[in-house]
Amino acid sequence: MKKIINKPENIVKEELEGVAVAHPDLVKVHYDPHFVVRVDAPIKGKVGIISGGGSGHEPMHGGFVGMGMLDAACPGAVFTSPTPDQMLEATKAVNGGAGVLHIVKNYTGDIMNFEMAADLARGEGIEVSSVVIDDDVAVKDSLYTAGRRGVGSTVLAEKVCGAAAEQHKSLKEVTDVCVKVKNWGRSMGMALTSCTVPHVGKPTFDLPENEMEIGIGIHGEPGRQRLPLKSADEIVEMLMEPIISDIPYKSGEQVLLFVNSMGGTPLLELYVAYRKAHEIASKHGLKVVRNLIGPYITSLEMAGISITMLKMDDELLKLWDAPVKTPGLRWGI
Amino acid sequence: MKKIINKPENIVKEELEGVAVAHPDLVKVHYDPHFVVRVDAPIKGKVGIISGGGSGHEPMHGGFVGMGMLDAACPGAVFTSPTPDQMLEATKAVNGGAGVLHIVKNYTGDIMNFEMAADLARGEGIEVSSVVIDDDVAVKDSLYTAGRRGVGSTVLAEKVCGAAAEQHKSLKEVTDVCVKVKNWGRSMGMALTSCTVPHVGKPTFDLPENEMEIGIGIHGEPGRQRLPLKSADEIVEMLMEPIISDIPYKSGEQVLLFVNSMGGTPLLELYVAYRKAHEIASKHGLKVVRNLIGPYITSLEMAGISITMLKMDDELLKLWDAPVKTPGLRWGI
Repeated sequence: MKKIINKPENIVKEELEGVAVAHPDLVKVHYDPHFVVRVDAPIKGKVGIISGGGSGHEPMHGGFVGMGMLDAACPGAVFTSPTPDQMLEATKAVNGGAGVLHIVKNYTGDIMNFEMAADLARGEGIEVSSVVIDDDVAVKDSLYTAGRRGVGSTVLAEKVCGAAAEQHKSLKEVTDVCVKVKNWGRSMGMALTSCTVPHVGKPTFDLPENEMEIGIGIHGEPGRQRLPLKSADEIVEMLMEPIISDIPYKSGEQVLLFVNSMGGTPLLELYVAYRKAHEIASKHGLKVVRNLIGPYITSLEMAGISITMLKMDDELLKLWDAPVKTPGLRWGI
Repeated sequence: MKKIINKPENIVKEELEGVAVAHPDLVKVHYDPHFVVRVDAPIKGKVGIISGGGSGHEPMHGGFVGMGMLDAACPGAVFTSPTPDQMLEATKAVNGGAGVLHIVKNYTGDIMNFEMAADLARGEGIEVSSVVIDDDVAVKDSLYTAGRRGVGSTVLAEKVCGAAAEQHKSLKEVTDVCVKVKNWGRSMGMALTSCTVPHVGKPTFDLPENEMEIGIGIHGEPGRQRLPLKSADEIVEMLMEPIISDIPYKSGEQVLLFVNSMGGTPLLELYVAYRKAHEIASKHGLKVVRNLIGPYITSLEMAGISITMLKMDDELLKLWDAPVKTPGLRWGI
């Protein structure tokens, strides 16, 4: 296992220590239970927004804590759901009296633990709403998941909901924005290589030198099919077709196109893929009005990409363009 | 070779096509000869800033074209110097009458071709100055290089020189800022894996499963030594010690600490490394006042990191904090 780590059991704690010393102007790190929280939380009268999940997907979620995005993020162990006490403590820490939204990716453990935390928080008088993101069109039901997995749309939901909360929209309004992203976003991913979970120490799966896996999950869960390695253009077609045909997006609509690295694929290849994805979207009459290109929801060092497309309306455009200041996304301030 | 590409010979052109459709608000792409240029170039009365080099190091340099950073970037083929005609055309395209600065990494081909382009541009009446960045403390002379290689400080130089030019400083003043970064920045890198140059199709070097290479260059040039794989803390010590002892930075000084991914190493590991690098800098009495953490000067999909430290004074701090709006770095606007 080739990684720049110390003991596998300390990786998340040490990463959080790195985040804490790197970004003291933006976030605080709370240990035992672990969560990353905005330095100015709680903000009176503002809806608090929390997400979380297993570590190994950085910058999601801890890198998206800050002005205009998340109020707190709860990192579990690598590829392991955070615990209800993390989510409960984070919920209390960001409660400014206007309620708290939990943005949850559709994995069985995440859902169970966020539900438990929400119940406990309600018991303490905090209004909590939850939205489950399930945007991965690759598979119905999967390892760890009933229904579709939650992937790239989560990043976009965190951005636009964060902007809505920053404008002091109500919990109902911020939740509605999140539901819109849940309904309008679709994703699909593929892998060239497996990742290696640090405490396992060997690759999650074997993928021969001339093969790829289409429809892979962000924890290396099985996809739709293994195929001989194809060209970038063919790979992008295999990801875009199921996305576009799923909603279906209508010709003339505006979309945000997000080409994401699974961790080990560099920007050079992402732009080659973006070129084709943009071309395919345009051929379907879709107008790509915003984009995001880079490693934002990763799967450790896995080589591969995912593509997310989100239908945009005027509300989402304004929220996307609003200022954001986090370690992982920053503009306008 | 597992990459998301089409034909290796088209990779740079297709990447540039991706950049062009992704960022039409920020940059234009000129083909034959290839260069990426600010959409609003030339800007009358502003010093133009150009850099360039082989492709494969994205987002450097093309991703750093835009307001507050570069006016143009010239991408060569992968790991191959751009040609003088690229640099000449880019120089002419960004000439707003106040002169043009060439920021050059210390590789023999880059230097020769930038010098030729500068001579040709001067022949056309454009004032050109050049600064060669040679910040890699790992080795004296190397494959492709006489003297030290130019690496991470280049990114920092592009940011602060871009800010100085944006304030309509003179060519002499912007050049002086670049020389300051050249003098005050030091870097060192290491690799866990080789990268594969697309048109070669096989790894540049072999590195057994339990070994790493310390002092590697960004083209896979040999480093100082091969060693059994060490812990993150030990690796960071091996990079920080030569950096700190080289200048030497004095206790009490302010520094920018830049932990960079070589391409295949994900953010999770960068923060583990940053934690230790920050601790070591602090133990030496250095005050880390700014940082940069992520993949900014990469070596295709190579797994590994580099660390750059730059001494900061009030001038550099103000220039670093100034607004920037490029595909790869963006804040303040």
